[in-house]
Amino acid sequence: MEKLPAQMTVIGISKPGGPEVLLPETRSVPVPGPGEILVKVLAAGVNRPDVAQRSGAYPPPPGASDLPGLEIAGEVVALGAGASRHKIGDKVMSLVAGGGYAQYCIAQDAQAMTVPPALSMQEAGAIPETLMTVWHNVFERGGLQPGETLLIHGGSSGIGTMAIQLAKAFGSRVIVTVGSKDKADACLKLGADKAINYKTEDFVAVVKAATDGAGANVILDMVGGDYIDRNYDAAAVDGRIVQIAFLSGQPKANVNFSKLMVKRLHHTGSTLRPRSNADKAAMVAAIEAKVMPLLREGRVKPLMDSTFPLEKAADAHRRMETSAHIGKIVLAV
Amino acid sequence: MEKLPAQMTVIGISKPGGPEVLLPETRSVPVPGPGEILVKVLAAGVNRPDVAQRSGAYPPPPGASDLPGLEIAGEVVALGAGASRHKIGDKVMSLVAGGGYAQYCIAQDAQAMTVPPALSMQEAGAIPETLMTVWHNVFERGGLQPGETLLIHGGSSGIGTMAIQLAKAFGSRVIVTVGSKDKADACLKLGADKAINYKTEDFVAVVKAATDGAGANVILDMVGGDYIDRNYDAAAVDGRIVQIAFLSGQPKANVNFSKLMVKRLHHTGSTLRPRSNADKAAMVAAIEAKVMPLLREGRVKPLMDSTFPLEKAADAHRRMETSAHIGKIVLAV
Repeated sequence: MEKLPAQMTVIGISKPGGPEVLLPETRSVPVPGPGEILVKVLAAGVNRPDVAQRSGAYPPPPGASDLPGLEIAGEVVALGAGASRHKIGDKVMSLVAGGGYAQYCIAQDAQAMTVPPALSMQEAGAIPETLMTVWHNVFERGGLQPGETLLIHGGSSGIGTMAIQLAKAFGSRVIVTVGSKDKADACLKLGADKAINYKTEDFVAVVKAATDGAGANVILDMVGGDYIDRNYDAAAVDGRIVQIAFLSGQPKANVNFSKLMVKRLHHTGSTLRPRSNADKAAMVAAIEAKVMPLLREGRVKPLMDSTFPLEKAADAHRRMETSAHIGKIVLAV
Repeated sequence: MEKLPAQMTVIGISKPGGPEVLLPETRSVPVPGPGEILVKVLAAGVNRPDVAQRSGAYPPPPGASDLPGLEIAGEVVALGAGASRHKIGDKVMSLVAGGGYAQYCIAQDAQAMTVPPALSMQEAGAIPETLMTVWHNVFERGGLQPGETLLIHGGSSGIGTMAIQLAKAFGSRVIVTVGSKDKADACLKLGADKAINYKTEDFVAVVKAATDGAGANVILDMVGGDYIDRNYDAAAVDGRIVQIAFLSGQPKANVNFSKLMVKRLHHTGSTLRPRSNADKAAMVAAIEAKVMPLLREGRVKPLMDSTFPLEKAADAHRRMETSAHIGKIVLAV
């Protein structure tokens, strides 16, 4: 085993601002505490919350690293006290509490998952945040069942492309909204049954028509704004609407709640980062039981948009902010 | 057994309008079909949907009686084919699909419950709609747990007063909002831990203060309008908000859904009348198992506001429309 260096290169947020504020820094290699492992990072996923954190809109929770990066894949190089799920040299992928944009990063032993051979390390680095978000919101919170219809807004995003694959793998029907023909094609290729271009079509009308008037059983919404009232229109009786972001920039909306009452809808939502380590470990345990077989068989893998070297993190953020990407953006370390 | 008459007196809605449109009519005594029973009505509960139906705002569902009245208590006088849960002469209380304001009314055998000796027939007639609404929305839909805090808007209504008693009987903490000192006193006497006068106090601030800042775990809301956004403020993390009416007349509201997402709230709702007979029978079965023991022991009974003779149904509606009532209004037949 190679000796661990004392220092490492990271990408820090030099001050709140545009992509250019992401600059290399030298930091001490962290030491894993009880229940933690140290991972030599090979790939770090780029996510919307990283962009929000960089611009100053989403400060890290108390106690978390100030560095961006919420998911990594790499090699275990040190074990904290009591960490027994993984051993030195194992290839793992994990959600992390920040600090993923770095050569080394601390992960919770209970949240790190073994990388299946069917995935490259860059693919593995694109998995944890997206998979846990989709698993928890679509399946645990939204309770999507086989045979039900899932409507995904933002179908070509990292989360959307994972949600398409998982919902199809578990026997549901999938309708997505996207903003271009290219994005529609990518979603259909992944298995989506229908792609709606929100720029030219009314998603409520299309979803109703595609479900014989019944509507969608689960709606995964990362848009918000005027989509919320329209989601209530597009939802089936007993439908579940799960709010995971407000990419419209509009968390406030004027909504007719009589639709929620009469159709017995459930509107809920969540954010992953502030969840307790115990909650995250429970999600990982469920994913290891239910989803890992699909990853091992290669039936589900992240749709990769692009990979940038760690030192080009600013370019990775620029790419995400154009919203031109289809699938996941990853940093190779 | 007395011979059934061919004709009966009912209270019909002569045309949409004020209480004065409720007028006696003579109708044929209905004949119970398969799975139905005929009940000689002794008491019929008065509910908000009756008032809405009378004013033309809430037409009965297809196939239902055009007569008002959604809950009754009385004596079983005839059995339809396959009706085996009750026998002639039994005292029962039941939700009905309309037609309660009458001397005789059809009920579903599976929805009729035996009247426990601890209840008078007038109390029994005040039970089904309220109890099923509270049971389904607070416990089945809202999932209220022992030790959790329930906030009830409209604490002194028929539904509110039943919700107070059930939540306390099952070990939860109860906070209510009311519009007067008299109503507050009535709720506290029934066991509510705290009563907030919404005319003089901010319920969000009081609920937060009363829960060490945590908020309410379940909120039963029949008000809507600007209460909705304030409910999101008053709710605890993982809180459930159940919408059962819009007495404010405002089903539309401008709401900040970032609170729903960040606090992982569940906002849902339901209306009882359009539910299938199978759904209603399932609620009755759960109530017979979980709530009937409390009714038999006299630990829970409806708070009675007033009783009017059937022919004074208009006065009963006038009383409900003043909102001066505390508890249930019942017609004695």
